[in-house]
Amino acid sequence: MKININADMGESWGAFAMGDDAGLLGTVASANIACGLHGGDPRVIADTIRLAKVKGVSIGAHPGYADLHGFGRRAMSLPDAEVEALILYQLGAVAGMAQALGHQMTHVKPHGALNNQACADRHLADIIARAIHLFDPGLILLAPVLSQLAAAGTAAGLSVALEIFADRTYEGDGQLTPRSIAGSVLHRAEEARDHVLGMVKAGGIVTRTGQILSTPFHSICVHGDGAEALAAARLIHSALQGAGHDIVPLPAALGQR
Amino acid sequence: MKININADMGESWGAFAMGDDAGLLGTVASANIACGLHGGDPRVIADTIRLAKVKGVSIGAHPGYADLHGFGRRAMSLPDAEVEALILYQLGAVAGMAQALGHQMTHVKPHGALNNQACADRHLADIIARAIHLFDPGLILLAPVLSQLAAAGTAAGLSVALEIFADRTYEGDGQLTPRSIAGSVLHRAEEARDHVLGMVKAGGIVTRTGQILSTPFHSICVHGDGAEALAAARLIHSALQGAGHDIVPLPAALGQR
Amino acid sequence: MKININADMGESWGAFAMGDDAGLLGTVASANIACGLHGGDPRVIADTIRLAKVKGVSIGAHPGYADLHGFGRRAMSLPDAEVEALILYQLGAVAGMAQALGHQMTHVKPHGALNNQACADRHLADIIARAIHLFDPGLILLAPVLSQLAAAGTAAGLSVALEIFADRTYEGDGQLTPRSIAGSVLHRAEEARDHVLGMVKAGGIVTRTGQILSTPFHSICVHGDGAEALAAARLIHSALQGAGHDIVPLPAALGQR
Amino acid sequence: MKININADMGESWGAFAMGDDAGLLGTVASANIACGLHGGDPRVIADTIRLAKVKGVSIGAHPGYADLHGFGRRAMSLPDAEVEALILYQLGAVAGMAQALGHQMTHVKPHGALNNQACADRHLADIIARAIHLFDPGLILLAPVLSQLAAAGTAAGLSVALEIFADRTYEGDGQLTPRSIAGSVLHRAEEARDHVLGMVKAGGIVTRTGQILSTPFHSICVHGDGAEALAAARLIHSALQGAGHDIVPLPAALGQR
Repeated sequence: MKININADMGESWGAFAMGDDAGLLGTVASANIACGLHGGDPRVIADTIRLAKVKGVSIGAHPGYADLHGFGRRAMSLPDAEVEALILYQLGAVAGMAQALGHQMTHVKPHGALNNQACADRHLADIIARAIHLFDPGLILLAPVLSQLAAAGTAAGLSVALEIFADRTYEGDGQLTPRSIAGSVLHRAEEARDHVLGMVKAGGIVTRTGQILSTPFHSICVHGDGAEALAAARLIHSALQGAGHDIVPLPAALGQR
Repeated sequence: MKININADMGESWGAFAMGDDAGLLGTVASANIACGLHGGDPRVIADTIRLAKVKGVSIGAHPGYADLHGFGRRAMSLPDAEVEALILYQLGAVAGMAQALGHQMTHVKPHGALNNQACADRHLADIIARAIHLFDPGLILLAPVLSQLAAAGTAAGLSVALEIFADRTYEGDGQLTPRSIAGSVLHRAEEARDHVLGMVKAGGIVTRTGQILSTPFHSICVHGDGAEALAAARLIHSALQGAGHDIVPLPAALGQR
Repeated sequence: MKININADMGESWGAFAMGDDAGLLGTVASANIACGLHGGDPRVIADTIRLAKVKGVSIGAHPGYADLHGFGRRAMSLPDAEVEALILYQLGAVAGMAQALGHQMTHVKPHGALNNQACADRHLADIIARAIHLFDPGLILLAPVLSQLAAAGTAAGLSVALEIFADRTYEGDGQLTPRSIAGSVLHRAEEARDHVLGMVKAGGIVTRTGQILSTPFHSICVHGDGAEALAAARLIHSALQGAGHDIVPLPAALGQR
Repeated sequence: MKININADMGESWGAFAMGDDAGLLGTVASANIACGLHGGDPRVIADTIRLAKVKGVSIGAHPGYADLHGFGRRAMSLPDAEVEALILYQLGAVAGMAQALGHQMTHVKPHGALNNQACADRHLADIIARAIHLFDPGLILLAPVLSQLAAAGTAAGLSVALEIFADRTYEGDGQLTPRSIAGSVLHRAEEARDHVLGMVKAGGIVTRTGQILSTPFHSICVHGDGAEALAAARLIHSALQGAGHDIVPLPAALGQR
């Protein structure tokens, strides 16, 4: 089975370092690159694109709210036209840089609060999905399984890659357990690995209570902030390969090219 | 004779309004659109692109230093790689938005201190010109007559459109009279009109002392900040038309298309 | 009767101009000065303090969310400790500058979404009022009549000055008519003047349906964005004086000093 | 001998972490706290003040240019009035927060490019020193030995604490060796310790060529970015104590209180 591993990257900004991009780029097959409005600056984005190209990692835009201080994690309620413009601007910046630097932007994954809100709010999800389609109908939308964002992507005519989270538990409705509930985040690398292997074997979400919600998925989302997160990413990579899976860039995980 | 009139636009940001874009878009034939780092935000840029399209105004990116508080007017000394990334990012953002919104970005004009420094510093000018060429070799570089920036554009293989300033006087070396010198800025609309007509007739720069420096030029740069500036722009437009010139978008002024 | 007129000021930022401070400072008796996080920068704040001193206008801090792009108008949900820190930081900045420049900061009026949310959310209002008291228990809190913010100020031990809005209509519960409802904003100067005179005469809020909600108030809030707003401020000033009222700085309107 | 150790702190901003403040606060006796314009946000500043108080560490403001993306390290050329306003604003913010949180701001140390430029440019140094004096003549100015900034502080009537750098070599004129020269930064903890002990013993600067420039000094500047820097700070602390010196807050190092 071909499967993808993705992580957020390029979120450093000026003198402020964020994450371990070099470490992650040796492990993941696809990178979601911050676009400058919640993190990432032109120099950081360029460096990330170049390094991803060298490593054979496919890239996508990771657009967020224009909220550097809140790192795009604060919920907002913006006019539709502003959300559309935010998406187009950020896709343009990363796609244009990638093309100039000899790489190709092949997917989009919204960031932070924009992603979280779009997973539950179909109207917002539609605005995002249509803006991506308007920008380039060939782009893949990377969205959580069983989310309104994924549904909006399909409705807009986009290829949708579905992702599960390595380090988060799930509720019976297929949504993430809120962070406020103890145990919702799997901090230990082995836990995260076992969680992923269980879901790959089950062919769907395995909830906190052990229930299986069957759903296709194409990608595992991992993180690179902290030594344990990077260790988990590496452990998951090895375990999947050990189980006979091919870790491939997102287009290949969807059977493209 | 076909000639262009250009102005900076799309520099408002959030709740902070800047310039009279609607007024200018009825007068100029080409708009230099701020790209979000010294002014302009995604919503403003989208609105400006849409309005320019309706008005038949050609558009270009107006990239500046990432310096919102200083409005891109503070001189900086950045590493070459950072300048290159700044250019690529801003061109990508505006070109991508334009394409999605059904318009086409056809030129680039650096903003503020980045422009001023590049007019005198050939190394910086080369970095900028090469980054534009890397992004899209078909783009026109709009640069002041007799500037290092113009020379760098030609050397990089770009089409270069040369501009003169309607409201600024010139020295014997073809450079602008420093603003610190009294009379260097022509505040009255009639003065600016007469200055432009004189240079069009002379086929070159007319200096403060009345000397003529022969040089081709393709565009007149006007401003839209303040009632007098907009009045000057309109007066120049009328006077040029009255003298039998066609006011055309930048590609047409260069004989393209 | 002694009564105050207040307006927001010092909201320009860098090259981005906002409002007509010079015009307002000849009309109002108290200025709410932006503190740099939603608008205002150190230079602007200093200039506003200096001009207010010359004009005999009392000054207050106008702290908002750290949201320059949204101009502090976007609702946020922040941890209590972050709200407290936002208040202390902004009060410190303006109070310190005022003291150094020979003026005295005598009141505080929260800005935008922070104010709106605190008018309805007693918990948030308490955090704000206690932070102001912690900073300086002698400060006046300027808050809308019949608001949770006003109640929180009293509970925290602050002197509370109550304000009414010249250009907004009121509902039966004493709250502002939402802007989404037609007629909620009184755009014409004469309307605003008559609205104010009616409330002064009634000794309380006059609602949209003509109901009177008796309440003391000490200040009229006016605006300076646009020619009509400034005209309204002047008209209200003249009408109140014509009706025999003294327009005085906020401390005097509360009977202090 | 009583001597001080100081370090920059509170430079994290939103989700962007910078430095190891908790580690440093166990080692230094005085903290230079970022004021929000080049780094630091209200929450971070409040937390740093509280922790410094608990640890018995004296605090100062660390004002810089309003340049978050450049982290205050980009040289600027601003009007005098803007520099003055920058200083007053930042001193006000930190002094006000400190007073509200039960600590006292006792010194000021300019940050980054503002500091570097003021060490060589007496006019800029005078603007800064006079602004500090205007704010509070009792504040200590912490400035490099043999700098224009130190001279300006004395001329303005401020108490001046002189500092040497633990990890930087010096030239024959008493200025820091430019970073572009190999060996100008002492990366190893033992090197930095030996450099400091040598200067303490010599009673002055020891230059790269071994020359001694006699000068009093009151404080050692250390850094906390990276494991090696923190190790150096601890090693210097131990070595100075081992040599019989008392590590004291800045006011005590000047013989105050």
